[in-house]
Amino acid sequence: MTLPVLALTTGEPAGIGPDLALMVAASKMPLPGRVVAVGDPDMLIERAARLKLGIDILVLESGQDVPEARPGVLPVWPVALRAPALPGRLDPSNAGYVLATLDRAIEACRRGEAGAMVTAPLHKGVIIEGGHASFTGHTEYLRDACSVDDVVMMLATRLDTPAGVQHLRVALATTHLPLREVADAITGQGLTRVLRILATDLERHFGIVEPRIAVCGLNPHAGEGGHLGREELEVIAPVLERLRSGGMHLDGPLPADTLFTPRHLDGVDAVLAMYHDQGLPVLKYAGFGRAANITLGLPIVRTSVDHGTALDLAGTATADTGSLRVALEVAAEMATGRGTGR
Amino acid sequence: MTLPVLALTTGEPAGIGPDLALMVAASKMPLPGRVVAVGDPDMLIERAARLKLGIDILVLESGQDVPEARPGVLPVWPVALRAPALPGRLDPSNAGYVLATLDRAIEACRRGEAGAMVTAPLHKGVIIEGGHASFTGHTEYLRDACSVDDVVMMLATRLDTPAGVQHLRVALATTHLPLREVADAITGQGLTRVLRILATDLERHFGIVEPRIAVCGLNPHAGEGGHLGREELEVIAPVLERLRSGGMHLDGPLPADTLFTPRHLDGVDAVLAMYHDQGLPVLKYAGFGRAANITLGLPIVRTSVDHGTALDLAGTATADTGSLRVALEVAAEMATGRGTGR
Repeated sequence: MTLPVLALTTGEPAGIGPDLALMVAASKMPLPGRVVAVGDPDMLIERAARLKLGIDILVLESGQDVPEARPGVLPVWPVALRAPALPGRLDPSNAGYVLATLDRAIEACRRGEAGAMVTAPLHKGVIIEGGHASFTGHTEYLRDACSVDDVVMMLATRLDTPAGVQHLRVALATTHLPLREVADAITGQGLTRVLRILATDLERHFGIVEPRIAVCGLNPHAGEGGHLGREELEVIAPVLERLRSGGMHLDGPLPADTLFTPRHLDGVDAVLAMYHDQGLPVLKYAGFGRAANITLGLPIVRTSVDHGTALDLAGTATADTGSLRVALEVAAEMATGRGTGR
Repeated sequence: MTLPVLALTTGEPAGIGPDLALMVAASKMPLPGRVVAVGDPDMLIERAARLKLGIDILVLESGQDVPEARPGVLPVWPVALRAPALPGRLDPSNAGYVLATLDRAIEACRRGEAGAMVTAPLHKGVIIEGGHASFTGHTEYLRDACSVDDVVMMLATRLDTPAGVQHLRVALATTHLPLREVADAITGQGLTRVLRILATDLERHFGIVEPRIAVCGLNPHAGEGGHLGREELEVIAPVLERLRSGGMHLDGPLPADTLFTPRHLDGVDAVLAMYHDQGLPVLKYAGFGRAANITLGLPIVRTSVDHGTALDLAGTATADTGSLRVALEVAAEMATGRGTGR
């Protein structure tokens, strides 16, 4: 079977993105797809030398097939840096370069040249400083580039349990908002859209028929019958009721500290948390640095590492490829449509 | 060595509190202290029969020594029910009874008759219905009964890791508030008080000299330098700075989903989360139903189970004593001052 092509954008060139791409290419551990890095070939050659990795950088022309993965070879779709890149030194002049690597990968996915894109971290601040004032992150950039209205952020990890590998997936109803704005951002329409995207993509990309989703309340104890907030009664429960009568399998709204226990997670395909810090600490704790970030709702498949640029580690060969490996695996599985299943 | 006396209030008589007390007394698994139940002896005899447990209920008179624990014997400090209690049937007439069991245990702790009190769950709603309109929970009741201004809720669990037993302790800066009220409830004065109580009690009761506390930010990514909220810059960081210069060992404010990873938890004695669902889901996930709730800041030692009355399980012998056992162990260790240490 031919493995899917995975376009790996190497992200901020001063960060660990290039290092991670080189490290997984150098490793003898098999890759789950035909990985092609998107970035500047000379920068990658220079970084490989710094990391003391013997890697052949194989520059591919447009339309050229991506070869099967081989340890020691990194195929690259070239995008030229705007200014020299040094590990640890952010340079706003390269903001356009970073965005151009995203554009190249998006285009490849839309044309079917790649089955999925996997993104290494970029640095939001330096992109804004580089003249892209409205830039708010990968996810929103992809949403706009793909002309969709709504996307959903989901993190996934695999747990090796005595009962075998289990999947923990946590999607967010709101993402990067100050905490004081969260309650007002939870609306019936928004929740409905998020739950529809989540259910659709669990089926489409993960091969889960009739996915079961457990939904957190917004307030502690899911509002405790109105004593600790009324959003569960007035917004969340009515949405779940309506979607259930449309055939969706939804548990909740449940207290977050009840839901995230083995008894309640059993048989659940994904959890919907109402906000960032309600869902992600437990996922990252459980995943132990082995989590992938997935953007649902796009016409293409996109996964990402769950960490930042780690400027201080760039060029030192000490970055951890664990999250990138999970992001590549999940991307490959989503691209082939078989998904990670239950 | 004589083990400390642990006054176990049996809580709501229609719930699983009496069952749990009887089940741990019947078990051959050793108890960490001289447990004495506080409740109605006839109700306990009736419940034991229902659970088919052969238990001697040993009614102690005031001033009588609590004997060493023996499987099959449950010493009791008697408090009389106001109305008959049936499993699963809440009766507001017994609200005063439940509060009287708390008063008995508090008094015993204050007089030195008990080294600690451990509380089984009560049902807040039925206590309010029973005429105690201002009742908001065990913690506040104990605070007022002990005439202190501030208490701190902390949950603790033990993790069996390849590196040995580790402790995860999570204290909360705010507790049972609707999410939309949390941001305004985080004040410099409040945080200062909470951190002082936390540090003092980790030293006093857990035997941890110069405890190290990791503090979460309020907003996702701890505000990301002000882009996702300014409370970290304006409230939290200045408090930590001031307390550090006073000698406290504080990390943060850190993003919650960074802090709750093994690398950041290593060497940390307790985490301070800003609110309920930022800290407790990960603790309960990690603790797997083996967590104890601890009230810090009191002149006495109080621990509690971390679950509710489970009315549907009362009288069925299916309740899980895991959390009660942890609550008893932590209480015993805090009472003897040696604590669970690092």
